[in-house]
Amino acid sequence: MYSITHRVGIKASAAAIYVALTTNEGLSKWWTNDVTGAGAVGAIIKFRFNGAGPDFRVTELIEYKLVRWQHLGDMPEAWKTTDICFNIEPTAEQTFVSFSHCNWQDSSDFMAHCSTKWAVFLLSLKDVLEGREGHAFPDDIQIDHG
Amino acid sequence: MYSITHRVGIKASAAAIYVALTTNEGLSKWWTNDVTGAGAVGAIIKFRFNGAGPDFRVTELIEYKLVRWQHLGDMPEAWKTTDICFNIEPTAEQTFVSFSHCNWQDSSDFMAHCSTKWAVFLLSLKDVLEGREGHAFPDDIQIDHG
Repeated sequence: MYSITHRVGIKASAAAIYVALTTNEGLSKWWTNDVTGAGAVGAIIKFRFNGAGPDFRVTELIEYKLVRWQHLGDMPEAWKTTDICFNIEPTAEQTFVSFSHCNWQDSSDFMAHCSTKWAVFLLSLKDVLEGREGHAFPDDIQIDHG
Repeated sequence: MYSITHRVGIKASAAAIYVALTTNEGLSKWWTNDVTGAGAVGAIIKFRFNGAGPDFRVTELIEYKLVRWQHLGDMPEAWKTTDICFNIEPTAEQTFVSFSHCNWQDSSDFMAHCSTKWAVFLLSLKDVLEGREGHAFPDDIQIDHG
């Protein structure tokens, strides 16, 4: 099994970060502008990019501390066994977000692409929470000429 | 063992990318502005950030296709077993750079930090080669408030 991991430090409260990871409005500012379904454990969040995109089931929430999602529905084959976790860790200076997209069956070009793209979106999350402009789809930073 | 992987697509020739990965001048535009020692297999490249930073030995070069480095000298403990590889893959539309930083003993917060930071620097490489401003240290994009 293989995993993507990232870690950013944000000048924002754990509560503000938690809202950005658990509500349609929060998620739509840093990942894609088309998000519906965010909610409590069991909710199915639909992320859409020009009408297509993955669904995730919320599988674990610890308020202000942890958000975990599992993929479901139609998605790239390589994502089918994977899940995604955000850990929120406040310190005196900043709040860290440790991100993982775990349990990939293979370390493929697609996984490497997703790793870079997740970095871009986590920096978008940081930008939004620190008062700068976010880069949610369709204004996301391009990592290739797809 | 754990690995960081990334993949970016660049509108530049494989030759231009190879130069950016194998010369002091090329490397200094996208990673840190203080680079000495780049050269053939066996060369020891010294990357410095405010006077400190890692050394790498060039362990494999395939012209316009592959660059591999191994860490040596003083470095973070977690880097001691690791090595770094850039694969250059031209297509009709763009040239892909597949990056890996392999053989980490543990999946730590430090590895997650490095994963995000490598993404930032690979996008800096892309920016430079596509005629935009790069973000080499000390003008690198900050991922936390260290």
